[in-house]
Amino acid sequence: MDVKHLSDYLGFAAEKLQKHNLFQSERFFLDVYCLLPGQSQKPHRHAASDKVYIVLEGQCRFRLGADDTLQGPGAALFAPAGVEHGVTNDGPANARLLVLMTPPPEHA
Amino acid sequence: MDVKHLSDYLGFAAEKLQKHNLFQSERFFLDVYCLLPGQSQKPHRHAASDKVYIVLEGQCRFRLGADDTLQGPGAALFAPAGVEHGVTNDGPANARLLVLMTPPPEHA
Repeated sequence: MDVKHLSDYLGFAAEKLQKHNLFQSERFFLDVYCLLPGQSQKPHRHAASDKVYIVLEGQCRFRLGADDTLQGPGAALFAPAGVEHGVTNDGPANARLLVLMTPPPEHA
Repeated sequence: MDVKHLSDYLGFAAEKLQKHNLFQSERFFLDVYCLLPGQSQKPHRHAASDKVYIVLEGQCRFRLGADDTLQGPGAALFAPAGVEHGVTNDGPANARLLVLMTPPPEHA
């Protein structure tokens, strides 16, 4: 049975944001991103994939289109296909995000 | 900006499980399900959609294929297309689930 526990995905690394895959199919992937203070995913866009970020712990600054917003645990942010998006952990705490992409992009 | 907070989706109802939509596109929907003790979603399957359940609070008994499992907060369960799945809140606490379906099924 395919059961995972979010609390098991805790791997951080000093060199860069860490991505841990929970589930993947041809239709989507669901990852946990672990960001130390100062780490980020630069703003980018996917032409044909939607992305959702959900904050599990910590606080991150999100870029969605032309907007910026600081969000903590329980926040869910939707970046539809074509919309620029990115995330930075401004600190001081470690941050973990649940990240949905549907469908997985070509380069994933 | 499309930001939602999971803590805002708290609507339970005595007559049946409540589904609250966070985001939807042609590619997916993301809902919060609120189940009082005793409420359930009967086992069913989707021919061409994947589903993921994530327990936000409470404990639920999940059916995945031929298996049953009792899971609490932070558990993530993957029901690929074609696999029978269902969920019951055995109680005693209220339960909330984050539910991903990709793509939205024809009847959704």
